[in-house]
Amino acid sequence: MHCPDKKGIIATVTNFIHQQNGNIVYIDQYVDRRQSAFFMRVIIEGEFDDFNYIHFKESFIKSLGHTFQLNCSFYLEEKLPKMAVFVSKYDHCLYDILSQQRSGKLHCTIPFICSNHEDLKFIAEQFNIPFFYIPVTKENKVYAEQKQLEILNKYEIECIVLARYMQIITSKIIDAYPNKIINIHHSFLPAFPGAKPYHSAFDRGVKIIGTTSHYVTEELDAGPIIEQDIIRVSHEHEVNDFIAKGQDLERVVLLRALKLHCERKIMVYGNKTVVFN
Amino acid sequence: MHCPDKKGIIATVTNFIHQQNGNIVYIDQYVDRRQSAFFMRVIIEGEFDDFNYIHFKESFIKSLGHTFQLNCSFYLEEKLPKMAVFVSKYDHCLYDILSQQRSGKLHCTIPFICSNHEDLKFIAEQFNIPFFYIPVTKENKVYAEQKQLEILNKYEIECIVLARYMQIITSKIIDAYPNKIINIHHSFLPAFPGAKPYHSAFDRGVKIIGTTSHYVTEELDAGPIIEQDIIRVSHEHEVNDFIAKGQDLERVVLLRALKLHCERKIMVYGNKTVVFN
Amino acid sequence: MHCPDKKGIIATVTNFIHQQNGNIVYIDQYVDRRQSAFFMRVIIEGEFDDFNYIHFKESFIKSLGHTFQLNCSFYLEEKLPKMAVFVSKYDHCLYDILSQQRSGKLHCTIPFICSNHEDLKFIAEQFNIPFFYIPVTKENKVYAEQKQLEILNKYEIECIVLARYMQIITSKIIDAYPNKIINIHHSFLPAFPGAKPYHSAFDRGVKIIGTTSHYVTEELDAGPIIEQDIIRVSHEHEVNDFIAKGQDLERVVLLRALKLHCERKIMVYGNKTVVFN
Amino acid sequence: MHCPDKKGIIATVTNFIHQQNGNIVYIDQYVDRRQSAFFMRVIIEGEFDDFNYIHFKESFIKSLGHTFQLNCSFYLEEKLPKMAVFVSKYDHCLYDILSQQRSGKLHCTIPFICSNHEDLKFIAEQFNIPFFYIPVTKENKVYAEQKQLEILNKYEIECIVLARYMQIITSKIIDAYPNKIINIHHSFLPAFPGAKPYHSAFDRGVKIIGTTSHYVTEELDAGPIIEQDIIRVSHEHEVNDFIAKGQDLERVVLLRALKLHCERKIMVYGNKTVVFN
Repeated sequence: MHCPDKKGIIATVTNFIHQQNGNIVYIDQYVDRRQSAFFMRVIIEGEFDDFNYIHFKESFIKSLGHTFQLNCSFYLEEKLPKMAVFVSKYDHCLYDILSQQRSGKLHCTIPFICSNHEDLKFIAEQFNIPFFYIPVTKENKVYAEQKQLEILNKYEIECIVLARYMQIITSKIIDAYPNKIINIHHSFLPAFPGAKPYHSAFDRGVKIIGTTSHYVTEELDAGPIIEQDIIRVSHEHEVNDFIAKGQDLERVVLLRALKLHCERKIMVYGNKTVVFN
Repeated sequence: MHCPDKKGIIATVTNFIHQQNGNIVYIDQYVDRRQSAFFMRVIIEGEFDDFNYIHFKESFIKSLGHTFQLNCSFYLEEKLPKMAVFVSKYDHCLYDILSQQRSGKLHCTIPFICSNHEDLKFIAEQFNIPFFYIPVTKENKVYAEQKQLEILNKYEIECIVLARYMQIITSKIIDAYPNKIINIHHSFLPAFPGAKPYHSAFDRGVKIIGTTSHYVTEELDAGPIIEQDIIRVSHEHEVNDFIAKGQDLERVVLLRALKLHCERKIMVYGNKTVVFN
Repeated sequence: MHCPDKKGIIATVTNFIHQQNGNIVYIDQYVDRRQSAFFMRVIIEGEFDDFNYIHFKESFIKSLGHTFQLNCSFYLEEKLPKMAVFVSKYDHCLYDILSQQRSGKLHCTIPFICSNHEDLKFIAEQFNIPFFYIPVTKENKVYAEQKQLEILNKYEIECIVLARYMQIITSKIIDAYPNKIINIHHSFLPAFPGAKPYHSAFDRGVKIIGTTSHYVTEELDAGPIIEQDIIRVSHEHEVNDFIAKGQDLERVVLLRALKLHCERKIMVYGNKTVVFN
Repeated sequence: MHCPDKKGIIATVTNFIHQQNGNIVYIDQYVDRRQSAFFMRVIIEGEFDDFNYIHFKESFIKSLGHTFQLNCSFYLEEKLPKMAVFVSKYDHCLYDILSQQRSGKLHCTIPFICSNHEDLKFIAEQFNIPFFYIPVTKENKVYAEQKQLEILNKYEIECIVLARYMQIITSKIIDAYPNKIINIHHSFLPAFPGAKPYHSAFDRGVKIIGTTSHYVTEELDAGPIIEQDIIRVSHEHEVNDFIAKGQDLERVVLLRALKLHCERKIMVYGNKTVVFN
């Protein structure tokens, strides 16, 4: 939940949960003082059945929503988010996502993989996941996105990961999935945005390269940053080494971002993320 | 504050503060489920004068202390802790402590430096801080610690940092400063305890060396760990390189631990630390 | 190559290669002064056919081997090492090894997977790799290792990775693969050796946990260390979090060690590794 | 030394040193294939007196210089570089430079400190180092730099460190000290160049902030990068936390760069650095 900051909000909320016989097993909050915004993430244990859960949500909003201008989301822990994976030709992120999901480390279901090339179809088959091949050209882009939206709707997809998809997504899809599309950018944004960041980094002679996972917004490579990390390089490394090291980092950083998202630990506010621990 | 975990504690405490017109500007808590222990750190803004502050503390304990078996400490932000620095012959940690304190980055006062050697007296003079030279031998150890205690009392010292003091402290001082004596051990405890950890690490052919800052307890090198960090080494590094890199790390890790302690962010429980962010 | 350190060795070797029309594209060396040992790794480009290559090796050893008491190995870059993967029930390292090998990031072939359980057979099938199920009990251990050796021989295996194999290997296999069996130990050795390191680390209240990849020798968890890395933990993490974070690190560290080994960048000397960059 | 890459160069050079009874105790080289450039750093032990040393240099250049179009520098290990420190009002980097130099960890002499403000004069006095106060305004800039150059010449300064000097240096000084002026920029260049990088980083919502040490060239913040490092931040950190964490990093990164420079481990080529280990 987030709302304008106001005295007594923590007391009121925890009090309310207490009265409803909920047991708070986790609570964390953050106040953005510059914007006077309050954020809180709470995990509650309770004897919830379908009826109780709906009742709890409704009475929570009725009792507190108006007073505090609350903006809140409720999730049941056992209900896994449905995540679509968009890929192009690179396999390193795809392999990692599927392996981690199968190992039970990434808490989501993956109803399908979508790609503008057929190269990685064999991996989808290896993992027994439906694979949709939707070629994208300048000419058919509108049609292709229309088809993508249809499948997304059909499978009731909740979030999309661009696992090195290499295509620009237009507002048609972005608007349908606001702060629900996760991208991995192979650079330490905002340094080296654009198409060939490892080459730019090499030319600049940097000693560290980075990778950024962020939500996709209409402005390219400028959406809310979820996670970043870096790896050291030296004069001994050529562009190809930058790329190899970078790709290794991409899969690590993207997975971390996906785990945070799937565990509902991220709130987006303005163009930033509040990431609870 | 910490206490046995109990439903409703957050609500009750935040409620109480709210009623006393305190504004919670920071709150963080942690529950150790295995031991069913609850920990909370709260920062409150309010119109406190001397009278109010004492009144607030008293009524807090009276209202909540018994119900929750609370164990709590109160600090006024503007009252800096008084920290004594014990050194031997190594200067790297001492320089860093004094520089950071003078730069306003380490929030404490340093009433004196104490050493069993005169080597670093000139640094105390450089920074215009009283320096007590108390030699320690097998024979005079009891007497030396007696003298140390006298000065510690005289200057109303609150905590002690062993900045590579190289002497074992006995229970006489430890008991007077429980969880108030901070040591830096030049190894990644519990690997390589004892006197020559860098040599042991070198002989084992490790690829990473570490440093540990911990509170001093009677069992040597076994007190609650505050902070640790590591640095990479390779086959190219000889013992002297291990030592040089290690010393660089010691000053960084010790400073971090001291800052956490001086900002009252550490609670000790069992033989572990809860470190709030 | 390695040998006792001696003046003029670099000049002589590079001179020799130069005379044979070899072009040195990489050269790195290290001198262990305490033991007066010299190590060098050289990559040569040249017009090598089968005849040339054998001739080069022979004349190298004949010309320089005796003078410098050289100990050297020759590898053709295009000949990939054959690596057997031993697993038990954990899948995280296995998935990573297979994915990275298929992505072309781990330069080896994987002729088979061997396990004492059938749990991961489906992954072998997913990746279309032979899977040998060899149960190991106290009683049949001698027989089981005999069978393992037979397959290792049959497939002309060059090195073995214990990807969380969870069984102790005896000297029968170790002697056949000296410094060729790579293990991942889920702790920052030498801290917390043995079976439940994450539990020990948790009980000690450490702030950092680590993982170590090493060659297997007869003394348990005491072989030459190849690579180590760490990850931060805090009081907020329970044993299960330690394990989850640790497993994520295990796959990263093991892969790094395997890549170094497969790219012939490691020399073992005494109980240490020289790892060229 | 660096030169165009050419077959046989390592053999020839090591051979020459060998013939002169020099003992190579360290050798490292790097080939930039894209530019076909060869770099080598060699440490030689020998019985050098004044006469020998000059003779060695001369015969080295005479024998090899022309053939290989060598570009080489010679240094005697015992002759420490003379480094001038320029500061403004921030004390954190200055304290660290002086402490580390006094601790024997930074191998240089510091003949004077120069500043456009008098704020840090007391630190110069603490460490007993001449302090030159040269105010810089728009109007007197030419005159101020003239005065700076005079002192630099008088003290035979070899390199300059801008320890958060906060003033732009013009070509008058840069040309006199090409690749000899080391700056610390409080950002992970090339992200956030300019005056208020921590504010920009905060506004972008980054998860990592960085610091870059580089040689000063005429194009602002665009000179050859020596060393970079980063530190994690989160939504919990406000601009002031970014600044505090960043300043802690600045002193670490600047010191590393200075140590590399003073130990003659850096070669500049094009707009990049080759940093030997």
